[in-house]
Amino acid sequence: MIFSSSLLENAVNEFAKLPGIGKKTALRLVLHLVKQDAAEVTLFSDTLAKMRNEIKFCKRCYNISDKELCNICSNPLRRQDMLCVVENIRDVIAIESTQQFNGIYHVLGGIISPLDGIGPEELTIDALVDRIKKEETTEIIFALSPTIQGDTTIYYISKKLSASGPVPAPVKITTIARGISFGGELEYADEMTLAKSISNRIPVENFILSGS
Amino acid sequence: MIFSSSLLENAVNEFAKLPGIGKKTALRLVLHLVKQDAAEVTLFSDTLAKMRNEIKFCKRCYNISDKELCNICSNPLRRQDMLCVVENIRDVIAIESTQQFNGIYHVLGGIISPLDGIGPEELTIDALVDRIKKEETTEIIFALSPTIQGDTTIYYISKKLSASGPVPAPVKITTIARGISFGGELEYADEMTLAKSISNRIPVENFILSGS
Repeated sequence: MIFSSSLLENAVNEFAKLPGIGKKTALRLVLHLVKQDAAEVTLFSDTLAKMRNEIKFCKRCYNISDKELCNICSNPLRRQDMLCVVENIRDVIAIESTQQFNGIYHVLGGIISPLDGIGPEELTIDALVDRIKKEETTEIIFALSPTIQGDTTIYYISKKLSASGPVPAPVKITTIARGISFGGELEYADEMTLAKSISNRIPVENFILSGS
Repeated sequence: MIFSSSLLENAVNEFAKLPGIGKKTALRLVLHLVKQDAAEVTLFSDTLAKMRNEIKFCKRCYNISDKELCNICSNPLRRQDMLCVVENIRDVIAIESTQQFNGIYHVLGGIISPLDGIGPEELTIDALVDRIKKEETTEIIFALSPTIQGDTTIYYISKKLSASGPVPAPVKITTIARGISFGGELEYADEMTLAKSISNRIPVENFILSGS
């Protein structure tokens, strides 16, 4: 692409550095910004710069946060004894958006995946074990990807928990239910999912009580 | 989507204002920026703000420009007597990228399209007519979309040119060739294109001379 304006060219190149944005899309976005009020574009650029400079990671749960402690950890209305372990910040947003969980989180920063070079020391597993020892957690819910890597991570953390001395009883360790998606069709479900959904079948009264 | 950080939420909302960027894509882009160095993000936001604040439109051809007169208009090596009329800035970039055109441009800002509420007065047609009268143009090349609207615009401008007094001879008015795309297959071409490509057939010697 040949530009007659270096201001335009620089802006397009900056946009094209973002993941999934090619040169043509970048040009479309930049030309959209050119058409906006200067104040709008200033707001856009200031918001991004402010976000990057002021954003923190919660020192307790490693969620993205405006302050030292994130809104979820510092909310007295949330159950501080229910800990949901997730892979990343996107998962926190996804679970929060369901408005069904009223506990707190722990963001691992990934899952154990030796092929991608991610071992336990890259994740916040030690901090999680420390938290469980210190805080009065009654239930740990693992909400990780239903993959071999996710299962390995759950297994590793459970072992680590029992190896690091007695887990304060009564700590319940659970994982999110795996089964057929709402609206999904049985015949298209993979064998593994279907098999698990049969072996982990739930009494209909529980099902109705859980409000689904 | 429920965010636990208002900095994150604001940044996502700003990104989601861009055309074709939904909330999920916006979140992906913002989380990418969070992972970058602060200096990188500052560069990104500064480049955009600077671009919007300093960008100008060339007072001669209405192309996007860093200065009063764009790089193309002020380049003494380009033929100032060959004027290519295009719809928008993207078309200038597309033609420049072919490196086959050595004249100057005129950006109309759109084409006449009554259904979209775009009449001749919304476009830079008057400025174009003025330029042709004043500058020593020898050829006007219309590089507009090959649609009814494009053809209407060409027709309107030609009429306007002859109505506004004698066009300085010798001004040649041409339009880009319409035909089968390079690599295209005859059987998939629409009838209109195929018919035009036969009626406007070119001698093979011209074809070879033009370097295709």
